[in-house]
Amino acid sequence: MGVMSTVSSGQHTRPMCYLLLLMILQLGLHTAEGVWPLPQTLISSTERFHLSPQAFYFGYGRQSAAQQGCSVLDAAFKRYFALIFPDYTSGRWNLFSDKNESKILLQICLFSVDHNDCDGYPNESSSERCKHKRLESFSQLVYQDDFGSYFVNKTDIKDFPRFQFRGILLDTSRHYLPVQAILKTLDAMAYSKFNVFHWHIVDDPSFPYQSRTFPDLSSKGAFHPMTHIYTQSDVRRVISHARMRGIRVLPEFDSPGHTKSWGKGQPDLLTPCYKGGIPSGTFGPINPALPSTYHFMATLFKEVSVVFPDSYIHLGGDEVDFSCWKSNPYVRAFMQKMGFGSDFTKLEAFYMENIVNITSALNKTSIVWQDVFDYHERVSTPQQITHINYEVRSTYYAELSRMTKAGMRVVLAAPWYINHISYGQDWHNYYTVQPLNFSGTEEQKKLVIGGEVCMWGEYVDATNLTPRLWPRASAAAERLWSDEKQTSNVDMAFPRLQDFRCKLVRRGIQAEPLYVGHCKQEYQGI
Amino acid sequence: MGVMSTVSSGQHTRPMCYLLLLMILQLGLHTAEGVWPLPQTLISSTERFHLSPQAFYFGYGRQSAAQQGCSVLDAAFKRYFALIFPDYTSGRWNLFSDKNESKILLQICLFSVDHNDCDGYPNESSSERCKHKRLESFSQLVYQDDFGSYFVNKTDIKDFPRFQFRGILLDTSRHYLPVQAILKTLDAMAYSKFNVFHWHIVDDPSFPYQSRTFPDLSSKGAFHPMTHIYTQSDVRRVISHARMRGIRVLPEFDSPGHTKSWGKGQPDLLTPCYKGGIPSGTFGPINPALPSTYHFMATLFKEVSVVFPDSYIHLGGDEVDFSCWKSNPYVRAFMQKMGFGSDFTKLEAFYMENIVNITSALNKTSIVWQDVFDYHERVSTPQQITHINYEVRSTYYAELSRMTKAGMRVVLAAPWYINHISYGQDWHNYYTVQPLNFSGTEEQKKLVIGGEVCMWGEYVDATNLTPRLWPRASAAAERLWSDEKQTSNVDMAFPRLQDFRCKLVRRGIQAEPLYVGHCKQEYQGI
Repeated sequence: MGVMSTVSSGQHTRPMCYLLLLMILQLGLHTAEGVWPLPQTLISSTERFHLSPQAFYFGYGRQSAAQQGCSVLDAAFKRYFALIFPDYTSGRWNLFSDKNESKILLQICLFSVDHNDCDGYPNESSSERCKHKRLESFSQLVYQDDFGSYFVNKTDIKDFPRFQFRGILLDTSRHYLPVQAILKTLDAMAYSKFNVFHWHIVDDPSFPYQSRTFPDLSSKGAFHPMTHIYTQSDVRRVISHARMRGIRVLPEFDSPGHTKSWGKGQPDLLTPCYKGGIPSGTFGPINPALPSTYHFMATLFKEVSVVFPDSYIHLGGDEVDFSCWKSNPYVRAFMQKMGFGSDFTKLEAFYMENIVNITSALNKTSIVWQDVFDYHERVSTPQQITHINYEVRSTYYAELSRMTKAGMRVVLAAPWYINHISYGQDWHNYYTVQPLNFSGTEEQKKLVIGGEVCMWGEYVDATNLTPRLWPRASAAAERLWSDEKQTSNVDMAFPRLQDFRCKLVRRGIQAEPLYVGHCKQEYQGI
Repeated sequence: MGVMSTVSSGQHTRPMCYLLLLMILQLGLHTAEGVWPLPQTLISSTERFHLSPQAFYFGYGRQSAAQQGCSVLDAAFKRYFALIFPDYTSGRWNLFSDKNESKILLQICLFSVDHNDCDGYPNESSSERCKHKRLESFSQLVYQDDFGSYFVNKTDIKDFPRFQFRGILLDTSRHYLPVQAILKTLDAMAYSKFNVFHWHIVDDPSFPYQSRTFPDLSSKGAFHPMTHIYTQSDVRRVISHARMRGIRVLPEFDSPGHTKSWGKGQPDLLTPCYKGGIPSGTFGPINPALPSTYHFMATLFKEVSVVFPDSYIHLGGDEVDFSCWKSNPYVRAFMQKMGFGSDFTKLEAFYMENIVNITSALNKTSIVWQDVFDYHERVSTPQQITHINYEVRSTYYAELSRMTKAGMRVVLAAPWYINHISYGQDWHNYYTVQPLNFSGTEEQKKLVIGGEVCMWGEYVDATNLTPRLWPRASAAAERLWSDEKQTSNVDMAFPRLQDFRCKLVRRGIQAEPLYVGHCKQEYQGI
């Protein structure tokens, strides 16, 4: 067999970056298999190509704007070669099996590439029609026959994501997750085409982020100052690993609530609570009445905005308990001075606006949890704020309607709180979500920029993260990537997801089973 | 420090085998720690001994009936040395840290040992006052200070299990579990003092047991005839690994229902179902109307009784669907001939009695699921049958009452179907079970010989078995081992269980967290 080159038909050519691969899907025995998440169109034929790992290689098409030296693609070629031919790279390949094969070249064409596609960080405007997400689809189409030979059927795929924001939240405060666990999650995210890692890095229980400016935050606020922290180098490693996989890293420094651990390393940051007219010794949310608070936050976010290159920063703003603020006479006096009366939502809004102004000045887009929207309805709202809805499923349609009507961009998280486990095939619940099925105009629906799977950490650490996340999160991944009409049936999706789960296991991801059955290669990492 | 020898005070001496260890529990900082499951009595002092891994060794007391050459104990000494001093055995120990230590000998005394304690298999009459379960308690009492030195406080422990049968069921039919996953489970079982591995080895979906007599059962009935089977050597390895840890292996060959996979390799075993007067092509439970059935079962169980040395065999007998039997004219004719009329429970009872007679003739005690009891009330019941109750929690007290009233020995499984996961700290449910809290005489209560944690395999394979099982099963372990009055409070148990869970993680068991927090050594096996 000769060179397998890319073909560009008129029908497929687009002015913007576009990619065509010659791909394969075996019919018959392999119909249950395929690509997860489902491409927008996938036309397969019975014509199949024998792929020899000895002779196969990836290359850049002549017409491609990207060429060798494009670091993200060069690395992806290498990674995907090993994923496609695991027998070969592990040294178990029989050299005699395909000595007669001639070279096969799979060409990648990027017709338009901007600087970021090769050497920068993925961002909200990155075109996902291109790049290595196509390598993922291709890798899923390659299969082995009973003798171990690799094949791919001629397949024509047109693909792009339905939503631009497809995130996974990990919580590294309630339990510390070793860097290796995060990197493994990023690997698996790429396999399901997630593109945002929402890093809920600090919270009440611990502050593992080792700040350059305020080292006491982690040395006093982490579970352990040496073993349970993320150093600057750890963070760089996570961001770099994510970048190579087309994944943005969105850091969250949640305030003014959820900050108990911050208080250990930063005196006078938290509000002292009062009881019977005197300080009780306990502390509440961040103290919004002190100028020093805003100075500290500005300094911290200045550092964060440099360390994390993404254009978004998540500011939290959820679940603020007002009782401690109410108990504190200095906070109450501040309220009077500011004319807030006894409306603590105004104080919360005042605080959040200050923080949003800080991050705006750093040229970052702020994301906050939905709570903040409720307060901000009454005050001026910077347009760049994107809310994440975390209400229960029964009400989130109403919330989406209300928030998009107010012009807010929204990321939907409510139906994908995947830490809430239950017995049985609960992936159905994540799969059958209809993110745009709320009452609103077309303009409103465009404001839903995507969705996010949240793995809160109360009951999750490195021991159980992976099997709880995968393949349950992959169900949400298809909802966010694929055409809803083509993927509305759970029974149709089941065998393809089951097959995809076995692919994850084969790739070393400890993804749990969906139901009774087996994989050709069971998990061996025990 | 000199020789740490065992001390036998008059108060503790008993005519039967008895063991005393000089043990340690640090007070103060370490009060949350301790032994899981809780010993019957544990008296600790602040007097502490420095243990040097360079100088520490286990030995047999001079008065001990067991001496060097007792294979089970010799191996346990070696194993527990590594568990107690992981830094030392991994080569990370600083030789300078305790060069001045003199030898410390921890003597094990077995005042009475029968043949089985050293070289045989554990059985239902094995005295668990002795042997290496004490090593487990001792290993949990050793702790390290902040400089890595090992200590143990002087501790006096009297211990024995509340129930003699403390089992875990694994299901290797709905998903295949690699041998390594089973061995790892046996390790963790020993840490929680479980002593019965109930191996639900075959069922509808697959028949992984490779029979010597009927090799087609696995070559046609397993998920894969080579990669998804248990060879004779695999089974021996499991039994041997269990024996060294004081664990019995109770095999279950469930029939006449749950046998779909059997039919693939054994023609004419299953009942052909009829539709509209002709065979429909589908098959039901084992055919109880053919003499060949009983010949086959006798031959199979003859093999099983040799391969599995335990005195118990589990015969299943649960969830038999009568519809296929009803549809089959030959089965109906057999019913008439036997005078069963149209009462299919009589047919089921007839079948089970035949199987029980087969295993009785092989000198094995039969265990069956509770269903069988319902049928056997009407027919003769061999006294050796032990039932396992698998009803829902709301009714199991009534079932226990009814079954023990009929003189049946019972193993309680109903409240410990641990495959049923739910969000949050569901170990509370497993911990607060009161197995004897049913209405009945003292004689009836003695018939409850223990309990069993069931991990059915619909949603479980090697990817998620360990974090689903541990430490949730450990909650049941304490209920079955410890005094109920001393262990009735979940809040008191929580820090000790949390500490025990960290010990499991330290020992390489992927045990999931109970709640927010951390372990000194987090799980590294990612």
